[in-house]
Amino acid sequence: MIAASSRFVPHPLDPLSQAEIQSTIDIVKKAHGELFFNVVSLHEPRKAEMSRWLENPSAPQPARIADVVVIAPGGKVYDGLVDLASGTITKWELLDGLQPIITMEELTAVEHVCRKDPKVIEQCGISGIAREDMDKVYCDPWTIGYDERHGNKIRLQQALMYYRPNVDDCQYQYPLDFCPIYDGEKREIIAIDIPKVRRPLSKVQPINYHPAGVAKAGGYRNNLKPINITQPEGVSFTMTGREIEWQNWKFHIGFNYREGIVLNNITFNDKGNVRPIFYRLSLAEMVVPYGNPEHPHQRKHAFDLGEYGAGYMTNSLTLGCDCKGSIHYLDAEFPTRAGGIRTIKNAICIHEEDAGILFKHSDFRDDSVIVTRARKLIIQQIFTAANYEYAIQWIFHLQSQQDGTIQPEIKLTGILNTYTMNPGEDTHGWGTQVYPGVNAHNHQHLFCLRIDPNVDGPNNTVFMADAVASEAPVGSPENYYGNAFFAKRTKFSTVGESATDYDGTKSRTWDICNTNRLHPYSRKPASYKLVSREVAPLLPKEGSLVWKRAGFARHAVHVTKYRDDQLWPAGRHVPQTSGEPSLGLPEWMGDGSESIDNTDIVLWHTFGITHIPAPEDFPVMPVEPITLLLRPRNFFTNNPVMDVPPSFCSTPSQVAANNAGVVDAKDKMSKLAFTENGNECCASPSYQPSARL
Amino acid sequence: MIAASSRFVPHPLDPLSQAEIQSTIDIVKKAHGELFFNVVSLHEPRKAEMSRWLENPSAPQPARIADVVVIAPGGKVYDGLVDLASGTITKWELLDGLQPIITMEELTAVEHVCRKDPKVIEQCGISGIAREDMDKVYCDPWTIGYDERHGNKIRLQQALMYYRPNVDDCQYQYPLDFCPIYDGEKREIIAIDIPKVRRPLSKVQPINYHPAGVAKAGGYRNNLKPINITQPEGVSFTMTGREIEWQNWKFHIGFNYREGIVLNNITFNDKGNVRPIFYRLSLAEMVVPYGNPEHPHQRKHAFDLGEYGAGYMTNSLTLGCDCKGSIHYLDAEFPTRAGGIRTIKNAICIHEEDAGILFKHSDFRDDSVIVTRARKLIIQQIFTAANYEYAIQWIFHLQSQQDGTIQPEIKLTGILNTYTMNPGEDTHGWGTQVYPGVNAHNHQHLFCLRIDPNVDGPNNTVFMADAVASEAPVGSPENYYGNAFFAKRTKFSTVGESATDYDGTKSRTWDICNTNRLHPYSRKPASYKLVSREVAPLLPKEGSLVWKRAGFARHAVHVTKYRDDQLWPAGRHVPQTSGEPSLGLPEWMGDGSESIDNTDIVLWHTFGITHIPAPEDFPVMPVEPITLLLRPRNFFTNNPVMDVPPSFCSTPSQVAANNAGVVDAKDKMSKLAFTENGNECCASPSYQPSARL
Repeated sequence: MIAASSRFVPHPLDPLSQAEIQSTIDIVKKAHGELFFNVVSLHEPRKAEMSRWLENPSAPQPARIADVVVIAPGGKVYDGLVDLASGTITKWELLDGLQPIITMEELTAVEHVCRKDPKVIEQCGISGIAREDMDKVYCDPWTIGYDERHGNKIRLQQALMYYRPNVDDCQYQYPLDFCPIYDGEKREIIAIDIPKVRRPLSKVQPINYHPAGVAKAGGYRNNLKPINITQPEGVSFTMTGREIEWQNWKFHIGFNYREGIVLNNITFNDKGNVRPIFYRLSLAEMVVPYGNPEHPHQRKHAFDLGEYGAGYMTNSLTLGCDCKGSIHYLDAEFPTRAGGIRTIKNAICIHEEDAGILFKHSDFRDDSVIVTRARKLIIQQIFTAANYEYAIQWIFHLQSQQDGTIQPEIKLTGILNTYTMNPGEDTHGWGTQVYPGVNAHNHQHLFCLRIDPNVDGPNNTVFMADAVASEAPVGSPENYYGNAFFAKRTKFSTVGESATDYDGTKSRTWDICNTNRLHPYSRKPASYKLVSREVAPLLPKEGSLVWKRAGFARHAVHVTKYRDDQLWPAGRHVPQTSGEPSLGLPEWMGDGSESIDNTDIVLWHTFGITHIPAPEDFPVMPVEPITLLLRPRNFFTNNPVMDVPPSFCSTPSQVAANNAGVVDAKDKMSKLAFTENGNECCASPSYQPSARL
Repeated sequence: MIAASSRFVPHPLDPLSQAEIQSTIDIVKKAHGELFFNVVSLHEPRKAEMSRWLENPSAPQPARIADVVVIAPGGKVYDGLVDLASGTITKWELLDGLQPIITMEELTAVEHVCRKDPKVIEQCGISGIAREDMDKVYCDPWTIGYDERHGNKIRLQQALMYYRPNVDDCQYQYPLDFCPIYDGEKREIIAIDIPKVRRPLSKVQPINYHPAGVAKAGGYRNNLKPINITQPEGVSFTMTGREIEWQNWKFHIGFNYREGIVLNNITFNDKGNVRPIFYRLSLAEMVVPYGNPEHPHQRKHAFDLGEYGAGYMTNSLTLGCDCKGSIHYLDAEFPTRAGGIRTIKNAICIHEEDAGILFKHSDFRDDSVIVTRARKLIIQQIFTAANYEYAIQWIFHLQSQQDGTIQPEIKLTGILNTYTMNPGEDTHGWGTQVYPGVNAHNHQHLFCLRIDPNVDGPNNTVFMADAVASEAPVGSPENYYGNAFFAKRTKFSTVGESATDYDGTKSRTWDICNTNRLHPYSRKPASYKLVSREVAPLLPKEGSLVWKRAGFARHAVHVTKYRDDQLWPAGRHVPQTSGEPSLGLPEWMGDGSESIDNTDIVLWHTFGITHIPAPEDFPVMPVEPITLLLRPRNFFTNNPVMDVPPSFCSTPSQVAANNAGVVDAKDKMSKLAFTENGNECCASPSYQPSARL
């Protein structure tokens, strides 16, 4: 149930409400006239102030402040802050050479301009598209990234062009070979990049994933019987506003235009002791570099969060569709560019899933057994970045894969970004012909997770843990049989030391520790271990455009000292940054000498995959999940989920007494696959000794 | 439904039936008198003969042959073959210096002998256990591994000793410090390994995961509401004997004492074209080396399959407990040592699970959308190897993570192997004190997957695929912006070239290709890609005892030319092998010069984890999954699962026509978490445009 809220004011980390957004807009308009509102979002409370309030909720609640980014006539960009209680603008700063996030409205404007632009029409004609078919020409508007010919004073987008003969077709099968550049201020095409080798429109038959396309290919399969998932007694979590409590976990679910879901103040109730674990967790940035060196494809390296916003692009989810069972939704509120309100219904879904076996053990002597099932809680959003969709799941384990584990998981689906190719053209290995005339370029999806830890308090230290063999040789007294190995732990004392890469040969992990809290048994510090195995390194080379702009992606891990407002590692304003200097994380790292030992720190983890496309990915791409774990080690006294009721438990003494007194809570809904009455069959002896010895 | 079988004879790959096992035993006894039967199992048909029959089922069916291993009086070991049709013994061979697999009966004998042995009783006394408490002394019987003092002529086990004051206690919290060695032939203790530093019995209070233990710690939590999974129309697969058909997949499910589940003749019906993919897949061996160099812990490096058998140790599964929904089970039949029959009911479970989103795409222009759900089929067994349980899942994807994917997944649970430690004793990093007085040693779980590929036919070739940056420097004409990267593919022409390790810095994968079949679009060979990220290298050093005995674990991948009977990479008989020479895979690799290019090959993949224990793993260990993928690349013409009916699909033209004609098959069982009537709420507009632009 939704607990009745005793507060009539928002939680300090709640996103701005409709009324707060509207109030901010009114205040700014009153002071500065008509503007385009790119951002009106919560300016999060300073950590020091917030921490005081969290420790003592009767302390003054941190003020509600709106973070505002606007574009004024003439393309002037301002950063501002508005104090909502007093209705005052406390900061108003003109930016130079920085372009704020591109809104959905700015994106959708480009296609309309392209269709009417004479030079674009001319190029379409060269490709083989008749003037009267310009309504069948589409573009995916991308920020220009950075193009040294155009710099960053003019607000630009590049238009990736496609021909879609039928409105219901997959958009990405007839890419066009030229690329218009759009000036967002003038609302016109200012240049077109035209390749040396022309590639006229492909004439192959389309392939479609929509019902008509499937019907043409033979129709839908009809042999998938339903799997129903129901929760007749409802969910096992409670919500108080945006604070959720589930199985000893408690945290606040924020959401902003940029990162989408933000999890705040994650605590775990350890037998009555509420222990802080993370102050704030979010996916803070990502970059998707493409690997084709032919101009202008180097401009394809989207920073989807910094340039477009995981919040702004998020889907409205639907009951019974994106997840199953009993679902709770949260909406999102954003400004429109003109100063109105845009609501995304069901921007976040929250639900539980059965997670298979939590633990099991049998005694081989007598087949006494315990089987306990696991459960997970999933906080999810799905955003569409033009062709791709990203489902971001924050999975909390009741546990499984170790107790108290948090598992961020990203599921990639949607459609490949494609470019055209001539019949018989060589892709030179920079891409794959996934369909005749369709070249899907190699690319990477690199995500940066911002981990603001609070493991038993704010003063934490990060260690790198490598599984390595003893240095003592085989035959030596210390390692006579050569089997010795151990976890070699290296402390990061300074920011510079923390810049480290993944090493699979050492099963490398990183431990976020509270060195002031040693475990009573292991004498090791309380920690959350980062276990991440999909850690493709940034493939664009050192000194390359992407390397310069995506400084956060140079290493798998960086650790910095915590500072307010250091949230987004490619910088606060990402479009059209040149990478000189590299904004965000490289700035914050400074000369690397700052101490990060036993202090308030932030760990930045870049992970992801390299995608060499294949025809199986086209015309729509099955989900590819990427996952990692934050798991407690030496944090709990022992296995903290032994109190989860087992499905079945018989002890040796119960087995000896003919199973008198066993716990039998087996799922009564399960049936045998091939009998009329599963229950009847279920009455056959269960957990009879497997071996008659 | 179970299709009516038109055959009255077993499939050539069916395990031996009860009658066949009994018949074999009778034939052998008649010829050779009373013996101990360690193995009576299907001797699989020769591949050439089997392939002829698969191609033409009216060809003569391969003969049913029993593979027999017995121990005769005096400890003489014989390998034999029995032709069941003719009732003749076609092979009977005395082995020298080889010990066959240890049966459950041999294992359980040890504890009884230990409890009565005066020297063991004496050592228990030194530990602090009274003579009258010997019924509270337990041992986990392990093969001795290899101990150079005892060699391999005498059949030995080592007894890992524990004190369990109450029969229902967790067994592993009071380990004893000495290790008796048991002679299986004499049925007596022939030696005891006693450490230099003695560690008397710990006096700490026990911790238990059983109901009484949980009650003592505060009782079970009561706030987990049920999640019900039901399949009212039954399952989507059919069984013909042990052959399963599901969503274009078809394969035979074998089972033997050694590997447990074996999947045979895996094919995929690609639009009417039945394409072979794998001839045989199994988990073929594993090794669990422990990292404490103190004698005799180097002997703890269990080859659970070769020394004890994943089949012999498998659990009898229970409906509504180990998995949920509609389940089909298969039993297993084995001989008893004395020559009877032992049946394990429900040794294999087969069921489907919902697998979240299969694919999704929205058009940001109009929010037209398709959402299709994924499904997986799971073939599972769970075996108990003394303290640990291993759940082996063979997951077939309808797909998700790419079409036609097969995902072997292993879930580790159960209880840590433990050793005793004195208060204040230093573990020297070789283990962790997980509970007072309990030292859980570092260990690895390394699994060897045997992949016998048949990708569009038997002649296959393996390539290593590395994602790497272009060698051309930033600023060069070939790579001006420095963003070029590609998949570098290296062909394995010879066995020697194939011995390769995982390289996370290159996102290394291995492609099993049919180079005779190029994809019509990509011009790349049809392939199944091995994607495996949990690939801890063998940490025991080169030349160490484990390195010598577990030759298969020296590299992540080895490829050999196919030969009948080369099934188990640590050798056919594993207990007490010295590793000199290293049996199995190292023998079969020879000098490495044999060609593996475009021929019938086998790929051996060793993967797994290094486990540095933590207190959270005790006294019962939450499931830790390890997974990998075998996924088709350049195999299907395009995405082969577009014909899976979507949950919801609206096209742009339908959106423009107010959603007329959309496919709406959303799950009607799903409900909002916090309303009385989920359906009512569901009627609120769905897939309304997420943005009002």
